[in-house]
Amino acid sequence: MERSEFSVLDLSQVSAFDCETDVIVCGFGGAGGSAALEAARAGASVILFERASGAGGSTGMSSCEMYLGGSGGTALQRTLGFEDSTENMINYLMKSCGERGDPEKIRLYAEGAAAHFEWVKSLGVPYKEAVMLDREVVPLTDESLLFTGNERTLEFMDAAKPVPRGHVPSHEGDFGGRIFIDALTQACVDAGVDVQYDSRVMHLVVDDGTVVGVAVKQDNQLKYIKARKGVVLTSGGFIMNDDMRKRYLPWNHKWATPYGNPFDMGDGIRLGQAAGGYTINMDEAFLSLPMYPPAKLTYGLLVNERGERFVNEDAYLARLAHFASVQPNQKLYLLLGADDFDHPMYIERLDVVATGDSIEELNAEAGIFPEGALAQTVAYFNEHARQGRDPKFRKAPEWIKPLEQGPFGLLDLSFDRQTAVIMPGTKGPLTFTLGGLDTLPTGEVKHWNGGVVKGLYAAGRVTAGLPRSSEGYASGMSVGDATFFGRLAGKQAASN
Amino acid sequence: MERSEFSVLDLSQVSAFDCETDVIVCGFGGAGGSAALEAARAGASVILFERASGAGGSTGMSSCEMYLGGSGGTALQRTLGFEDSTENMINYLMKSCGERGDPEKIRLYAEGAAAHFEWVKSLGVPYKEAVMLDREVVPLTDESLLFTGNERTLEFMDAAKPVPRGHVPSHEGDFGGRIFIDALTQACVDAGVDVQYDSRVMHLVVDDGTVVGVAVKQDNQLKYIKARKGVVLTSGGFIMNDDMRKRYLPWNHKWATPYGNPFDMGDGIRLGQAAGGYTINMDEAFLSLPMYPPAKLTYGLLVNERGERFVNEDAYLARLAHFASVQPNQKLYLLLGADDFDHPMYIERLDVVATGDSIEELNAEAGIFPEGALAQTVAYFNEHARQGRDPKFRKAPEWIKPLEQGPFGLLDLSFDRQTAVIMPGTKGPLTFTLGGLDTLPTGEVKHWNGGVVKGLYAAGRVTAGLPRSSEGYASGMSVGDATFFGRLAGKQAASN
Repeated sequence: MERSEFSVLDLSQVSAFDCETDVIVCGFGGAGGSAALEAARAGASVILFERASGAGGSTGMSSCEMYLGGSGGTALQRTLGFEDSTENMINYLMKSCGERGDPEKIRLYAEGAAAHFEWVKSLGVPYKEAVMLDREVVPLTDESLLFTGNERTLEFMDAAKPVPRGHVPSHEGDFGGRIFIDALTQACVDAGVDVQYDSRVMHLVVDDGTVVGVAVKQDNQLKYIKARKGVVLTSGGFIMNDDMRKRYLPWNHKWATPYGNPFDMGDGIRLGQAAGGYTINMDEAFLSLPMYPPAKLTYGLLVNERGERFVNEDAYLARLAHFASVQPNQKLYLLLGADDFDHPMYIERLDVVATGDSIEELNAEAGIFPEGALAQTVAYFNEHARQGRDPKFRKAPEWIKPLEQGPFGLLDLSFDRQTAVIMPGTKGPLTFTLGGLDTLPTGEVKHWNGGVVKGLYAAGRVTAGLPRSSEGYASGMSVGDATFFGRLAGKQAASN
Repeated sequence: MERSEFSVLDLSQVSAFDCETDVIVCGFGGAGGSAALEAARAGASVILFERASGAGGSTGMSSCEMYLGGSGGTALQRTLGFEDSTENMINYLMKSCGERGDPEKIRLYAEGAAAHFEWVKSLGVPYKEAVMLDREVVPLTDESLLFTGNERTLEFMDAAKPVPRGHVPSHEGDFGGRIFIDALTQACVDAGVDVQYDSRVMHLVVDDGTVVGVAVKQDNQLKYIKARKGVVLTSGGFIMNDDMRKRYLPWNHKWATPYGNPFDMGDGIRLGQAAGGYTINMDEAFLSLPMYPPAKLTYGLLVNERGERFVNEDAYLARLAHFASVQPNQKLYLLLGADDFDHPMYIERLDVVATGDSIEELNAEAGIFPEGALAQTVAYFNEHARQGRDPKFRKAPEWIKPLEQGPFGLLDLSFDRQTAVIMPGTKGPLTFTLGGLDTLPTGEVKHWNGGVVKGLYAAGRVTAGLPRSSEGYASGMSVGDATFFGRLAGKQAASN
């Protein structure tokens, strides 16, 4: 029987199942491993299919930062002297997600995040009781706690007390994802999960609207597997699917670079849609403008091609990128005094547009901005910076320094000029998707016609989960979300 | 048999059809009437179902501006001395739609728009050979040609020669939609279309993936109608469906007012999805900031709560609204000199925030902006305005006037403070949806799994058609699109 990819098979079209199990999980990244483990620990027999030849997905590629807090603080936060109430974390997340946020998911997550950290540690993932308070992206030393969002910016401090919530496995350098996935894989094996690699789930098998199994391609053969309790989709987002990217993210496909594992092809989103699920937030994506470290670059003024500032420069790199993305032609320039002039660590190719002993001289050399515009921007900033204030954009006082003493330098951070160090040869900011299937916090996939798709669950970037926009993104919101809600989805599937 | 709304019925579930026809059209607005008429004229028997008790949809409520040109100009453009090549119109539309645009639809539309105007006239719709060149929204006198977009702004003039393309039925006051729909209804009746009102299409009937009929609710009874050639969905957008609006337009649902007919409930989008269609551009919506007329308000400076300008004030109302929507808290203020101080005609409730003989005095009274910010904005503008230039935002010279002579006034145009005159009692800018089913230019509904949904067609705001964003919207792009591509969809369905 030939069917096009990702269509639903009616049970009547399946002559016989090749085997059966309680729960089938589709995709072994952070979400899938967490779902499979919890389903197995709840007593279900579990098969975990992964299209690649090994576990990891995009979580495995990441630093495995998890955005955790609440309940007075995780053990790590508390040990290091940080108190973080659940309400404080909710307030932060609500501010982060804005109107796009899912208040139910946010509350459940904030209530359970500290316990989730215990679960992660119980897998054997090492965390060091040390905090890194610098303005960094990931610690290059071995601390396990850091700020990974906009917590210390004045606008977010209006909503919540700043607490570092980025929890990262302890290791020198950026290896957290591998550490976590190795631990998770071992736990899955120990719990009896049947992990099958090189296995691409092609169809969901549906009986009168209920998902009862899958058809999976192995060795170029389609096999039919029955799921007595449920199927969990955890196959990632769609940033590597160029058709879907053009369809849903036309606004960034010309200038951003997809970031994820090669199988972030939207398989699970399409499977879920075929079974009655619907997608939300498909137009939103993470973007990154790693203007820092070194942190001192934050003293600079980030301006658009009009010579105007458009964001507090102390914002998190995802928020910087969001506001950068809506500037004319995505043209961006960073103006720095000589003391703070440096090369951003995570940007490979970068032009120095101009230098000058005065702003006027630099401006003449740059030849970019409308006449007098940059000088006016700097004059306004300096006037208030002398009093440690930034009335227009509310940069925090610690990052305010008047640009009075030349020479000055101007870096070109325009999207068409920059390349992320971790993706050499590419162009523009890194991006991954934040839209997908709409789900209940339990992972049940909502049906476009009301209710849920029976027998179907999803978690991770195959869904629209906790993070909803680059504007409010904090690193760790995606891996935290994937693993936390992956566990819930696995438990829920096993409970049938 | 009970089925939930909008699910697909398999042919095997339909015991017998109550009647049959060649083509079924679902929804009698501009798109549906046009589709039904062309299908009937092509020799097909046609039933046109409309959920309301009369024809019109949102086209009927509109001014019935159609955005037409190309082919050297429509007859009306040429008579009035305007030349408009197809390439010129394409260039304009490509600039308008940006990365979101559909180049195939744009080309086909630009190539056929002048002939489409002849078709509209042939229905008996009156157009007066007179042009209204003022900066207006609709003519309150009886001219039939006007500028309805950003054609005369410098940024769009970089892409295309400015030509007025708004074609509106001649009538004193805003009655175009009624005139057009009455003419279209008569033509449908004359062509033998069987128009049935109070008839809500609930299900598509599908036979092995091909749409072969519908189930329609009439007098609270479900009737089954077979379509030998095809079903055309023309039931409008989803701006009146609060669930869908929150799902897809979370960013505007708190501050914008839905604008459309009460049955813009997304019925057709959901029907199409159930049959295998998919949606795109669901996050985009038209927004309106009718800061003018009177046109002289364009001399003012539109600033955000930082006291900074953010758009050329001579932009079209939809573009003004787009840029306004991304300002902090959607707070907007219009600074005017005494000569130009007036009340926007289309905004009902509006506060004068402050007045003053000098900017400083006005600023102190307003108490809104960061210290010195407004004065700096005005100083920069004035310095260049004296030479007739606006280097930052490129307002066209005819709208540039230094703000030198007090007294000055400041109007509050913030989204939470304004009410559209045509929707008294509401709050914020008017909005309607620009996302829907993805279709081929022929109206064939694309299947999410590749190819098309056989037997299914769609046009109008049930689809993502010609207009894709408020940023580039020109009035007449939606009714023009709905009627033009409605005709194509009807012809295509009839040709089976």
